[in-house]
Amino acid sequence: GKLFKVAVLPGDGIGPEVMAEALRVLDAVEKRYDVTFERTHANVGGAGIDLEGRALPETTVNICKASDAILFGSVGGPKWETLPPDEQPERGALLPLRKIFGLYANLRPAIIFPSLTSASSLKEEVIAGGFDILVIRELTGGIYFSQPKGIEGEGRNRVGVDTMRYSVPEIERITHVAFQAARKRGKKVCSIDKANVLSSSVLWREIVINIAKEYPDVELSHMYVDNAAMQLVKWPKQFDVILCENMFGDILSDEAAMLTGSLGMLPSASLAEGTFGMYEPSGGSAPDIAGQGIANPIAQILSAGMMLRYSFGMVEAADAIDQAVAKVLDGGYRTRDIYQEKAGEKLVNTKEIGDAIIANL
Amino acid sequence: GKLFKVAVLPGDGIGPEVMAEALRVLDAVEKRYDVTFERTHANVGGAGIDLEGRALPETTVNICKASDAILFGSVGGPKWETLPPDEQPERGALLPLRKIFGLYANLRPAIIFPSLTSASSLKEEVIAGGFDILVIRELTGGIYFSQPKGIEGEGRNRVGVDTMRYSVPEIERITHVAFQAARKRGKKVCSIDKANVLSSSVLWREIVINIAKEYPDVELSHMYVDNAAMQLVKWPKQFDVILCENMFGDILSDEAAMLTGSLGMLPSASLAEGTFGMYEPSGGSAPDIAGQGIANPIAQILSAGMMLRYSFGMVEAADAIDQAVAKVLDGGYRTRDIYQEKAGEKLVNTKEIGDAIIANL
Ligand SMILES: CC(C)[C@H](C(=O)O)[C@@H](O)C(=O)O
Ligand SMILES: CC(C)[C@H](C(=O)O)[C@@H](O)C(=O)O
Repeated sequence: GKLFKVAVLPGDGIGPEVMAEALRVLDAVEKRYDVTFERTHANVGGAGIDLEGRALPETTVNICKASDAILFGSVGGPKWETLPPDEQPERGALLPLRKIFGLYANLRPAIIFPSLTSASSLKEEVIAGGFDILVIRELTGGIYFSQPKGIEGEGRNRVGVDTMRYSVPEIERITHVAFQAARKRGKKVCSIDKANVLSSSVLWREIVINIAKEYPDVELSHMYVDNAAMQLVKWPKQFDVILCENMFGDILSDEAAMLTGSLGMLPSASLAEGTFGMYEPSGGSAPDIAGQGIANPIAQILSAGMMLRYSFGMVEAADAIDQAVAKVLDGGYRTRDIYQEKAGEKLVNTKEIGDAIIANL
Repeated sequence: GKLFKVAVLPGDGIGPEVMAEALRVLDAVEKRYDVTFERTHANVGGAGIDLEGRALPETTVNICKASDAILFGSVGGPKWETLPPDEQPERGALLPLRKIFGLYANLRPAIIFPSLTSASSLKEEVIAGGFDILVIRELTGGIYFSQPKGIEGEGRNRVGVDTMRYSVPEIERITHVAFQAARKRGKKVCSIDKANVLSSSVLWREIVINIAKEYPDVELSHMYVDNAAMQLVKWPKQFDVILCENMFGDILSDEAAMLTGSLGMLPSASLAEGTFGMYEPSGGSAPDIAGQGIANPIAQILSAGMMLRYSFGMVEAADAIDQAVAKVLDGGYRTRDIYQEKAGEKLVNTKEIGDAIIANL
């Protein structure tokens, strides 16, 4: 059978609890398919700071380097919020991981599960039947990483500077990811930019239009980022794949995720060229409910599913996970975050919903 | 009596129709208060391009320079969309106007009128009782105007570059605007940044914290822009004044405006140091309904009200306009964009709702 090496980075807050359920799902996949997931645990985020002195310890990087994929929990919490930004769990772990492993393509699905439409703060008539958006965000370029960046000068003469820079190859490769994803879904790409103001966006739009010619079966549209922030609220169903540069993708993917009302349910993938990738829930570490065994592990389990799909080519097993989650939700199982005290709902804890998903695999 | 000079720039699409109603409201104010508004009309946007060869003709700039304030309609439409970005009506008129007149403080209210809560795509329970957010956006700095900006290199070696730069005085003056506004309202400022990634945001946050010390009566909080995009959707009532740099303000003010469901109702002000300002609706030129006399003039009328308040110090008259609009809405008057076929609603056209507002002044 096949063997895949997984670096397991549970992190902080609810990270370890929800990771435990995802690992049990991997156990179940091992039993049903001829595959072994060799797992190595490593510290990251606040756990990295507390145990090894930094958010992304050297040991952790080496374990990731020796693996086929990273399964990441979540990081951060009040304990580390007063550290300098560079050293904080989120920034100090995520940005270096993205850069070191060249994780240039961030896939963030924003899906409303039909049985959970009422969790959204959008009106029933706006989201009836659910929606299914995939935000593809460029993750290693743009204003996050370009130089010059820094604070120049002294005292009141100081100036804060950041640079948003995109090269043609950077735009090309993320555009291919978006069009290839769209091909397997609704066959529409909406490319976001601010080409009426930004030069990087003018180049972005030109290159996207060029690459689109290789995908005549996929429909391309363009939208300014400010308009996109509005259209998501107005009529999210108009979108299939949304293609963004790094900063716009940060903002719009979070907006889209919140519109689903089920932030605790959304996985994400950050892919390098080749098959390496990092997989993590879109939500945060929820320190307020950590350690109580009540957190929703679905985002972490679906992230493991994305790992099977994108890094290990196990499409069937990934589909099985997605379907098991949908069945459990249709069956009324609800952790506290998605419990609405409606008829047919069963309030369950982290482990119980994990059990239900495994039983449905 | 007093005399104020107003440069009237109706622009394109519904601009001229809704401007006509705002000017009738100014006539009514002249009759009730001891004041004269000397108006000079000028071309802008597509009208500028068609009649004088550019979106912001020299004559128009001179008329604005000779005025105490600019009342701006709206610009743009399909006819001019194929021009190069720099020459298009919106970008070609708005960005130079902001720069020439130093309009550094953009005030964008996002208000749900209690009688129109059902127009929002947010659930009734999320917006019950309405909400009232004021986005204060820095408008002459940041990634819109900083250098270097452009496309370097040739062919596939090209790189698109933009620069986000903020100096201490730029941050200080917009922060004062936000705190002074908050003082007259809910006494809360939420400053938006991305200080975990951007150096300009690190400086932004430090300066905002410093200036806040001069306003001990106002509560300051900070939020990352991605989180703000989520929190607006989740619970808009948590916000009073939102303070943003240029690009974040562009995105979040539009998101907040759309959340009200009444984009055609929202005015905006762009203020220079001193009393000069430009006043315009937040919505667009709506070319699809232009010329039919059915557009909603409320945003334009409220923009004229903001002009009285901020440039002419006529607080009482400005309040009277705001109240007249609220009364007309409570009375059930609805242009087509806000008509919901409910009991008590009267479907009216542009001129009829203008008449009703004037009658209530
Ligand atoms: C923590 C932060 C640096 C990060 C980002 O801005 O990319 C986060 O918001 C995300 O979206 O993964
Ligand atoms: C037209 C465009 C340049 C402008 C901006 O981005 O500022 C517009 O979106 C606005 O918000 O006034």
